Amino acid sequence: MAGGELHFTKMQGLGNDFVVLDGINQRVNLSTTQIKHIADRHFGVGCDQLLLVEAYAGEDAEFRYRIFNADGGEVEQCGNGARCFARFVYDQGLTRHTTIPVMTASGRIVLYIQADGHVTVNMGVPVLAPAQIPFVSARQQTLYTVDAAGESLALAAVSMGNPHAVLQVADVDNAPVATLGALLESHPAFPKRVNVGFMQVVARDHIRLRVFERGCGETLACGTGACAAVVAGRLQGLLAEHVSVSLPGGELRIQWQGEGQPVAMTGPAVTVFKGTLNL
Amino acid sequence: MAGGELHFTKMQGLGNDFVVLDGINQRVNLSTTQIKHIADRHFGVGCDQLLLVEAYAGEDAEFRYRIFNADGGEVEQCGNGARCFARFVYDQGLTRHTTIPVMTASGRIVLYIQADGHVTVNMGVPVLAPAQIPFVSARQQTLYTVDAAGESLALAAVSMGNPHAVLQVADVDNAPVATLGALLESHPAFPKRVNVGFMQVVARDHIRLRVFERGCGETLACGTGACAAVVAGRLQGLLAEHVSVSLPGGELRIQWQGEGQPVAMTGPAVTVFKGTLNL
Repeated sequence: MAGGELHFTKMQGLGNDFVVLDGINQRVNLSTTQIKHIADRHFGVGCDQLLLVEAYAGEDAEFRYRIFNADGGEVEQCGNGARCFARFVYDQGLTRHTTIPVMTASGRIVLYIQADGHVTVNMGVPVLAPAQIPFVSARQQTLYTVDAAGESLALAAVSMGNPHAVLQVADVDNAPVATLGALLESHPAFPKRVNVGFMQVVARDHIRLRVFERGCGETLACGTGACAAVVAGRLQGLLAEHVSVSLPGGELRIQWQGEGQPVAMTGPAVTVFKGTLNL
Repeated sequence: MAGGELHFTKMQGLGNDFVVLDGINQRVNLSTTQIKHIADRHFGVGCDQLLLVEAYAGEDAEFRYRIFNADGGEVEQCGNGARCFARFVYDQGLTRHTTIPVMTASGRIVLYIQADGHVTVNMGVPVLAPAQIPFVSARQQTLYTVDAAGESLALAAVSMGNPHAVLQVADVDNAPVATLGALLESHPAFPKRVNVGFMQVVARDHIRLRVFERGCGETLACGTGACAAVVAGRLQGLLAEHVSVSLPGGELRIQWQGEGQPVAMTGPAVTVFKGTLNL
């Protein structure tokens, strides 16, 4: 973009925050430098990621969206971003439908706006085969033993498009998220590194969860981490089909029928403010 | 504020960022909870401080402003905030004057908008008497010796309304800002703690500076720290009357004639975007 006015909406899903751009009613063609500037929290607008909404020409979807990290690089799916996208196109009047198919860099997904305004995202079928997670193990198991920090730890391994290790803890407030998370993230058993979830089972329909995200440390709310934790807990017989997941940034509702079925994630998406920027 | 639309402008001065509110053309009466929400970088707009511009009824000034920290508490003067205030009232057409007297929580100050758009702030007369800084010393000296980190360190002590220690270093990039800054901040010689500046003298009219701010660690650009460093350097005979100060967040120009005279600080104030929030 050579310059000019850019209209945007600031949104957040469980504290994961987005600058959302309507690329239908305005021309948007941002350089990497401009994306970095917009994402900067002191010199720009500030966000974790920038979400660009565009029209899609095919029959399978009305829209497509692209997500850019604060460093300007384009990334794939993001559950919190998907929910914000759905609320954005609905609240802006870009669609009147509450079932919204959309093309993303990871393929087509379908989003559902619920009566309470929360949004449900189909997060796909969890991958449990070790080689595809990837996790080094001769065979697939519900729990694996991994040596770290001088101990033998029991953990589950699940891919939701990205690899997750899930450990059950008695009290998530006192879990060693930073230290053990960093150790497991770069453990040789996970050749592409791993996100590490610490799950406290409160009841069959309620867990508390903290996630150490690969490459960035503990985050407020990791959507794929919530899905992986519920999948791991279900496979161990600890959880029901519908589970509330309490994360530091807020609540997600996860539904999973069982192996071979997709995971449905439901959560909030909030418009914080609308703004206009001169580039 | 019970609720409703709030119009704001996001501004920054050397990366120190402000949500600026026009309290003249809209009614603004924010609760502490609302200020905290606005300042939150993930769930709100995000800023270091909130700046509220109001009309002033007296003859000494057209305006007054109030500055609130992200925790909702009201604070006194802030050089970066003062520059943003001046650009705000001028750019919004609230005044046509480029010399702008304003009442603040610290009293009346006068701001000058320069031809290049930068703003000059009168930062007051530096205080050098040890008891008033406060600094524990029997008599006033240009340099004091303080023991810290197992060494005898030479430092200057200056108050610009808040206490500053200034150390000269050969290379500011490799200065131990975090470690030595924290040690000196809570050194018993400074009973109300202290901001610690690490100054590299590049030339008589140019210094490079990093500042460890009391209670918050290293910051992008400390205006009073820049003034204190130039005062300390001038008293040691190292600097000219006009000095450029290169801080991590950008450049400030400082002018100081000498003891008993006020310090003038000139620097940028930038409008980043305008927004509307529903409270």
